[in-house]
Amino acid sequence: MTFGGSEYDELPVRDELRGKSPYGAPQLDVPVQLNTNENPYPLPEALVERITERVREAARTLNRYPDRDAVELRTELARYLTRTGHHPLTTANVWAANGSNEVIQQLLQTFGGPGRTAIGFEPSYSMHGLIARGTGTGWLSGPRHADFTIDVAAAKEALAEHRPDVVFITSPNNPTGTAVDAEAVLALYDAAQAAKPSLVVVDEAYVEFSHRDSLLPLIEGRPHLVVSRTMSKAFGAAGLRLGYLAAHPAVVDAVQLVRLPYHLSAVTQATALAALEHTDTLLGYVETLKAERDRLVTELRAIGYEVTDSDANFVQFGRFEDSHAAWRRILDRGVLVRDNGVPGRLRVTAGTPSENDAFLDAVRDLKKEQSA
Amino acid sequence: MTFGGSEYDELPVRDELRGKSPYGAPQLDVPVQLNTNENPYPLPEALVERITERVREAARTLNRYPDRDAVELRTELARYLTRTGHHPLTTANVWAANGSNEVIQQLLQTFGGPGRTAIGFEPSYSMHGLIARGTGTGWLSGPRHADFTIDVAAAKEALAEHRPDVVFITSPNNPTGTAVDAEAVLALYDAAQAAKPSLVVVDEAYVEFSHRDSLLPLIEGRPHLVVSRTMSKAFGAAGLRLGYLAAHPAVVDAVQLVRLPYHLSAVTQATALAALEHTDTLLGYVETLKAERDRLVTELRAIGYEVTDSDANFVQFGRFEDSHAAWRRILDRGVLVRDNGVPGRLRVTAGTPSENDAFLDAVRDLKKEQSA
Repeated sequence: MTFGGSEYDELPVRDELRGKSPYGAPQLDVPVQLNTNENPYPLPEALVERITERVREAARTLNRYPDRDAVELRTELARYLTRTGHHPLTTANVWAANGSNEVIQQLLQTFGGPGRTAIGFEPSYSMHGLIARGTGTGWLSGPRHADFTIDVAAAKEALAEHRPDVVFITSPNNPTGTAVDAEAVLALYDAAQAAKPSLVVVDEAYVEFSHRDSLLPLIEGRPHLVVSRTMSKAFGAAGLRLGYLAAHPAVVDAVQLVRLPYHLSAVTQATALAALEHTDTLLGYVETLKAERDRLVTELRAIGYEVTDSDANFVQFGRFEDSHAAWRRILDRGVLVRDNGVPGRLRVTAGTPSENDAFLDAVRDLKKEQSA
Repeated sequence: MTFGGSEYDELPVRDELRGKSPYGAPQLDVPVQLNTNENPYPLPEALVERITERVREAARTLNRYPDRDAVELRTELARYLTRTGHHPLTTANVWAANGSNEVIQQLLQTFGGPGRTAIGFEPSYSMHGLIARGTGTGWLSGPRHADFTIDVAAAKEALAEHRPDVVFITSPNNPTGTAVDAEAVLALYDAAQAAKPSLVVVDEAYVEFSHRDSLLPLIEGRPHLVVSRTMSKAFGAAGLRLGYLAAHPAVVDAVQLVRLPYHLSAVTQATALAALEHTDTLLGYVETLKAERDRLVTELRAIGYEVTDSDANFVQFGRFEDSHAAWRRILDRGVLVRDNGVPGRLRVTAGTPSENDAFLDAVRDLKKEQSA
């Protein structure tokens, strides 16, 4: 992609897109890649074989459109959420799309859009704001405390003042790793509804790595509360692009008005169903990663870094006078982490034990350099 | 999906979505399904095996994000277009997404959107207008002649008067089957550009079934002309959801600003690449279907129906005083065709020879009833 030349400059693109750059972490060929919160464990070979079996079956009728409503997949996702989320859910509560990004896009097309606004408490997952822009939804940046927890009092004021149509609460938060407790979510939900009927989206992309339970039970009796999830992280399937949401069935009905028909391919549905058959094995890897995440927090603190408490599969650490320079020094040692633009901080994904050792060696060296 | 209940009515959905229904043909369990323009030929078993091989490889790194830019796939699509479209194209000219619907959505997010308008010449593919609504783009319905060809003079007037930002030209047109010649496309392109710099999208979803060549060579020297395509029909892969576009590289760069990152899963990319390896076999099925399409036209006329000339894998026929009643009578005979809302007409997909025979028997009976 070049983004230059007179033809590009003369394209009649929307004014608000002019001069912008596409979202995306640098894709560099580095030995240790701890920059995009991928699960470092490849799918077990038994699951790879199960995927090929299910895809073979799907391929035999690939000339036909896929199940537009993805009923079997939504049923299995509901079963998974019921089992792990401490709250009974059915097919009618669940909707699936190509990654949680598409789930969020469908929600913003339905409940946001031109003349409406959405709010997030930043720093948070930057795609919320970018998808708002892509759907013509106005974007508001809400406050956090210095320790990266949501400043609930200030957030309630912002909700009352700006009366947004969609509210994003990311828990655990990306890039900080910060979990939000149920009490805070309920306070924000009530404040949002008091200001105007609005949709509250709890983005739980990383919740399987949390020390706390999912906020799923909160959807009971709250038809404007949505929980979004993904198979990218806990299921080790970033390449699959399978995101989903749980909510009152009315919300699932409403997104039908904007979802592209047959948006979810038969091979995606088949692959996701195979992965769900291997849930227990995959959640075993999650336990390993949680232990590694905790080790990263402990060792980074021992080295002398300031570390944000993490409920995710990544850790935010600092501080650096120049975080981009620090990012580069770590990269020079063969380890790619993420510079998310949070001043003085970087984010590292929990990898395999040996990847994490390589990272810790690199940042130990860096600390020595800085102290020297 | 229920679309009822007080929770649904009280959801804060956008005003323009209230009371609307989702797009989608009725999915009925009927012996002969000729309603959604699917290719009736399953993929050959050798291709099914090749898909499983490529998906097995992809599954082994499914824990990693897919190639965000889908370079290998776009390269092979460019090679296919170069071979069949009589115009040399490279990777930089091609972009791919989850079905041509997502391609169109990305184009409308980039070049349409709030405060902008798009035009189509109707009856045409109804998703153009629905995706316009979903992206906040205003929708204009342009004219056709009584024989369903585009009324170029009236269309030029409409372009001058309304100055739309995006112009859709569907060739062959769905649901009528009507091809558009290069001269008409150029006249509309020039008229559109004279009114205002705008994007002209030629939707060639069915072009492999046409008696005419693709309009692809027209993109040369016209950076605002886009051709959209799909693997759903000619490649017999409706279940795959793989659409793509060919245009000046600047257009490909521009849609990066709105595409969701990693929108195209690793299994989708692997499956599409496998299918492209079997292009010759699949295009052989296309030749069979073209012959069957021509047979349907000939026999429908022999029975006494009025039939629109078709360059697609379907045929529009009539007239009926009550097309919905006729649709039901054909369904009673075990054959599902499509009632697209074009007054007095129905649309039938070219199926296998025996499916087409069943359809022809049904409409022969219907004609006798009507004449009796």
